[in-house]
Amino acid sequence: MAIYAQRSTVMFQHCDPAGIVFYPRYFEMVNVVVEQFFDEVVGWSFGQMHVTERMGVPMGRIAAEFHAPSRLDDRLDWTLVTGRVGRASAEVVIRAACKGEARMTVRGTLVMVALDEMAARPWPDRVRAVLKDYAEEQA
Amino acid sequence: MAIYAQRSTVMFQHCDPAGIVFYPRYFEMVNVVVEQFFDEVVGWSFGQMHVTERMGVPMGRIAAEFHAPSRLDDRLDWTLVTGRVGRASAEVVIRAACKGEARMTVRGTLVMVALDEMAARPWPDRVRAVLKDYAEEQA
Amino acid sequence: MAIYAQRSTVMFQHCDPAGIVFYPRYFEMVNVVVEQFFDEVVGWSFGQMHVTERMGVPMGRIAAEFHAPSRLDDRLDWTLVTGRVGRASAEVVIRAACKGEARMTVRGTLVMVALDEMAARPWPDRVRAVLKDYAEEQA
Amino acid sequence: MAIYAQRSTVMFQHCDPAGIVFYPRYFEMVNVVVEQFFDEVVGWSFGQMHVTERMGVPMGRIAAEFHAPSRLDDRLDWTLVTGRVGRASAEVVIRAACKGEARMTVRGTLVMVALDEMAARPWPDRVRAVLKDYAEEQA
Repeated sequence: MAIYAQRSTVMFQHCDPAGIVFYPRYFEMVNVVVEQFFDEVVGWSFGQMHVTERMGVPMGRIAAEFHAPSRLDDRLDWTLVTGRVGRASAEVVIRAACKGEARMTVRGTLVMVALDEMAARPWPDRVRAVLKDYAEEQA
Repeated sequence: MAIYAQRSTVMFQHCDPAGIVFYPRYFEMVNVVVEQFFDEVVGWSFGQMHVTERMGVPMGRIAAEFHAPSRLDDRLDWTLVTGRVGRASAEVVIRAACKGEARMTVRGTLVMVALDEMAARPWPDRVRAVLKDYAEEQA
Repeated sequence: MAIYAQRSTVMFQHCDPAGIVFYPRYFEMVNVVVEQFFDEVVGWSFGQMHVTERMGVPMGRIAAEFHAPSRLDDRLDWTLVTGRVGRASAEVVIRAACKGEARMTVRGTLVMVALDEMAARPWPDRVRAVLKDYAEEQA
Repeated sequence: MAIYAQRSTVMFQHCDPAGIVFYPRYFEMVNVVVEQFFDEVVGWSFGQMHVTERMGVPMGRIAAEFHAPSRLDDRLDWTLVTGRVGRASAEVVIRAACKGEARMTVRGTLVMVALDEMAARPWPDRVRAVLKDYAEEQA
């Protein structure tokens, strides 16, 4: 079982007047993790996917738990693993932590779609294979 | 049972290269609905709450289902009702539709916090009363 | 000479940890003013323009002066007038004030482009006529 | 004369329905360059500056020229140099290029302020010295 990991820093633009990450901005960071996973691991950049091939991977549903607030300058450690991988969809579990403290857990369902028809399409075989390589072991 | 309703329009800034609303932007719209509900219904503007009183209502958890994509110029009809209202938290259910077609359903848990301690605080009585006025009837 | 006017409110999402509007968010508000001007006055919504007709009006250049900070809950009064209107471009001057206090002045140059070629195109005649109706008188 | 340089990638979140960087998002990238310059070069992180010391460096004015559009996946090379450095302000010139093609030039004026009074304050001496180290030579 593989785990995708990356780090990012909470920047000024992410924070609200309460001095903590504004949660819609957390979802932008989540999208960056997914985008970099596709670019670095799957080998399918979002530019190639969306612009050249007119395909996309929107979230069909997403659920987030915010365990503790994040603040300006925090270094966040992100991980991404997958859950069930279907014909045209895949569950992803994305976690953020700072110095070992859990900050956020997101469970989402990516759907492979053709953008012009906005209709589901099966994952290309090699993409499905990669997604399964990152499947979290079930307890 | 009361329902809070408002309308907004999908603007250029909300849309991604796929031509549909980028989901982190949906959460900004959701935040606007909550913010305007507090301003217009509860009578507690976010400026007064956050800056003057140093209180806040961050989401402790949030789950969204995206039923159908929204596009530039779409007029969205939003509703907000509440679910369980606790001592220091409240469930909210926020729905967006366009011409009667469901677009998104969000279930979130607002937590009343003191910003400086980032610690939960009981709702002021009059706020809890208003939140209960908007409680969705249980099936 | 006509002046386009609209109002908006500084929302939580616009504000930074300093408690004031984060300037990239000001430009989102500026874009909303331009977008609503095209929708309401020119009669050319950004959805129709971008998606259906594959045209756009990106800023070729933009300059902003921030006269005084804006804060959460501030009601902003926006005005838009035009300057020189060329074959394929137009200067716009957009101002924000709160209770009569100037907050920001933006001078930008919109360029009419065909999105697929990303090449300049002349304004449709009726659009140029409207833009000229909103031309600020020169001192 | 020193030049601060960094790279970033145009992500999905930066792009609009026209498939190019939405200009308010460019200003978020510009803010990141300034923020990382202060963190890495000046040794004054925005968290330390804003939250701990209640100081800030808002833009007093900013002007941008967009030379050519940037697209999803583009690797942008950023540079930052300073211009005139005053008692409580400093001009910065920030440029973005992709594979040697100029994309954007921004000239802005940072103002050192105390956040609680929102009043100008002189640069700390060591900060002013660093800012002068990065002063672009005048032609």
